[in-house]
Amino acid sequence: MAGTVEKKLADLGITLGTPAAPVANYVGFVRTGNLLVVSGQLCFGAEGKLLAVGKLGGAVSIEDGQKAARQCAVNLLAQIKVALGDLDKVQRVVRLGGFINATPDFLETPKVMNGASDLMVTAFGDKGRHARTTIGVAVLPMDAAVEVEGLFEVS
Amino acid sequence: MAGTVEKKLADLGITLGTPAAPVANYVGFVRTGNLLVVSGQLCFGAEGKLLAVGKLGGAVSIEDGQKAARQCAVNLLAQIKVALGDLDKVQRVVRLGGFINATPDFLETPKVMNGASDLMVTAFGDKGRHARTTIGVAVLPMDAAVEVEGLFEVS
Amino acid sequence: MAGTVEKKLADLGITLGTPAAPVANYVGFVRTGNLLVVSGQLCFGAEGKLLAVGKLGGAVSIEDGQKAARQCAVNLLAQIKVALGDLDKVQRVVRLGGFINATPDFLETPKVMNGASDLMVTAFGDKGRHARTTIGVAVLPMDAAVEVEGLFEVS
Repeated sequence: MAGTVEKKLADLGITLGTPAAPVANYVGFVRTGNLLVVSGQLCFGAEGKLLAVGKLGGAVSIEDGQKAARQCAVNLLAQIKVALGDLDKVQRVVRLGGFINATPDFLETPKVMNGASDLMVTAFGDKGRHARTTIGVAVLPMDAAVEVEGLFEVS
Repeated sequence: MAGTVEKKLADLGITLGTPAAPVANYVGFVRTGNLLVVSGQLCFGAEGKLLAVGKLGGAVSIEDGQKAARQCAVNLLAQIKVALGDLDKVQRVVRLGGFINATPDFLETPKVMNGASDLMVTAFGDKGRHARTTIGVAVLPMDAAVEVEGLFEVS
Repeated sequence: MAGTVEKKLADLGITLGTPAAPVANYVGFVRTGNLLVVSGQLCFGAEGKLLAVGKLGGAVSIEDGQKAARQCAVNLLAQIKVALGDLDKVQRVVRLGGFINATPDFLETPKVMNGASDLMVTAFGDKGRHARTTIGVAVLPMDAAVEVEGLFEVS
């Protein structure tokens, strides 16, 4: 039985698959009190393939970067689904950390990261409005174009 | 009516303006329980212009980087003022995250970040002493020289 | 009197020294409620010397990077020991943030970061399994190869 949020996502054609296994010795999320800390999610698509590989400012266009960021957000939701069983238990998206694999002269990282932020607001409405930090990093695991981590207040 | 902390800042010639609007689809802060999470602040000055643009180790001097970091801290305080109405409600500066736009060979990022840390201690005294992580990043939004995010325990 | 966790570490030949003083104007940790936030730890060894200097993908091998990451984790534990007196008070390693000093084409940052993650699981067992974000950064303080920060639930 999918909750309200998941139905909204389904209407948009977004289904939450089984989250990718962590690429190393850690777990996808940890809950402490009412806070759910979700590990940095790479832009793996439904088929387990990275949606965008390489650097913004290099081989990856802004549009493809935005799609990658959106997919990272979908993957955060998939982790929450595993953690809580129901996305409706999210009381607030507290913070997203956005890591953009970028060349040193690429200045549009916020625009890329909006792919993730927009999805959170689409999914959760006002509860989806979050604090955010976006930085351009030298490189990401497997040369993924985008990685996003999340902090959520949950019930 | 300004509280004690704000008066101290005023004595130093620091006034807290209206915070810059987030440069994208997110909010300046989120409170969850007694924690206030403030989004990464760029070094926008009072006139809405970045105090320092470019990379440490490149066009930006250490001294200008320190001023930029200090301004990021001022902008964090301006967000707190909006969030809480009174800076005296800060019980502890828990953590600052410092992101320095740096060339790969610039080794003085902690010295730059002290511009932000020193201001917190000036404003809050012992309550301003915080945990901190400083990294040199490939690039920041709008090529800002410094970005600082903050986590605060509040009443 | 060392607790269970510290005895396990001693059996592995790991002793927790006095943590390195912060390299700038901040503190090693801040506790807020049941959360302990520990500052980013560089890979200082027992003699106060960085275990690995330079970039992964450059002068530093993956194996040396892993040892450096492990040392960062040891240094996190040393901070916790100062904060709590007894590592047995750690209820959960909530999150590690891994910052790898890397060239823009170095894709094995998760493998490097496992040096830190593995130590946490060794020390704390299931309580040591954590959420994690790993990124490759342009540069770190003093050109350290690895920096790791931590968030812990404590009693």
